[in-house]
Amino acid sequence: MKVLVETSARHLHLSQEHLEILFGKGHELTVKKMLSQPGQFACEEKVEVIGSKGSLKMSVLGPVRKDTQIEVSLTDARSLGVAAPIRESGDIAGTGACKLVGPEGEVELTEGVIAAKRHVHMTPEDAEKAGVKDKDMVKLDIESPNGRSLTFGDVVVRVSASYATAAHIDTDEANALAPGKECYGEMTK
Amino acid sequence: MKVLVETSARHLHLSQEHLEILFGKGHELTVKKMLSQPGQFACEEKVEVIGSKGSLKMSVLGPVRKDTQIEVSLTDARSLGVAAPIRESGDIAGTGACKLVGPEGEVELTEGVIAAKRHVHMTPEDAEKAGVKDKDMVKLDIESPNGRSLTFGDVVVRVSASYATAAHIDTDEANALAPGKECYGEMTK
Repeated sequence: MKVLVETSARHLHLSQEHLEILFGKGHELTVKKMLSQPGQFACEEKVEVIGSKGSLKMSVLGPVRKDTQIEVSLTDARSLGVAAPIRESGDIAGTGACKLVGPEGEVELTEGVIAAKRHVHMTPEDAEKAGVKDKDMVKLDIESPNGRSLTFGDVVVRVSASYATAAHIDTDEANALAPGKECYGEMTK
Repeated sequence: MKVLVETSARHLHLSQEHLEILFGKGHELTVKKMLSQPGQFACEEKVEVIGSKGSLKMSVLGPVRKDTQIEVSLTDARSLGVAAPIRESGDIAGTGACKLVGPEGEVELTEGVIAAKRHVHMTPEDAEKAGVKDKDMVKLDIESPNGRSLTFGDVVVRVSASYATAAHIDTDEANALAPGKECYGEMTK
């Protein structure tokens, strides 16, 4: 099955508690741009993420979540000086520590920094068509117009009625691929 | 055939003329560490590479070459603000421009910045064993201990008696793979 491949740049998700510490009591996220996943949006709010070696300003993605989670590339992790184990979104136990600085306050996190495991969001209809189910591992074969074609292995399938079908890779993975403006991959089991 | 996979971080090669402008008349490169390719070495000399958006300090690799060439990842190219087309080493016509700053002088380059096309250096003996020849395109299938296994396509074979057999990828490609300390790939046609 042919699937859209999108690149996720570094970003963070905030819990309501942390949002209010960083941006002030009762603060609500300001939508800047809706994303391809239904209900998800890039926000006007930016947070400085500080590690042992450096800092990076990152956009917040909304809506708020149960736990604060910072998603970086391994390149970012190195320049920040933080650990960023490769994990699925939400699986943050024992992941990297960092400090967050917002206009109204700071949060010292003992965990929450990950490099996102590459994944394919799928609608139940598309998953059925492709013959895959939630948590299956697939491959994604992608042609590059710039001489860096490759096949990503270890791609985890995520199925939900709240998703749009699209694969997500990070900026390191996108650079290894050097895709054109619009990128599609062939998903195989 | 199983081949060693090595990661090349950003670096530059200098012509004798540019070496002397940057480091002074009659300057010779100082060997810091021999590399796996016979006769190639990392140098003590470092050069500041400046683009329209930023600068990066890079190690010089020796010996000197006919043309100055700067090899960066696409991540580096973005932070520098320079064009870095994906090219084979030596093929620099029309590539990215930058400025080089050394302790004794500066060089304004109109071309020379590339992102290296992934490649496999092979001895003639190993190429014969693998049934490939210079300029052939192959695939490199690599297991990742960190859940980012992948198959690189568009890998160009370079055969020379002066090489040791090893594949070279850049730091973006290495991060997309998240290899362990020692990395081997299975080369296939």
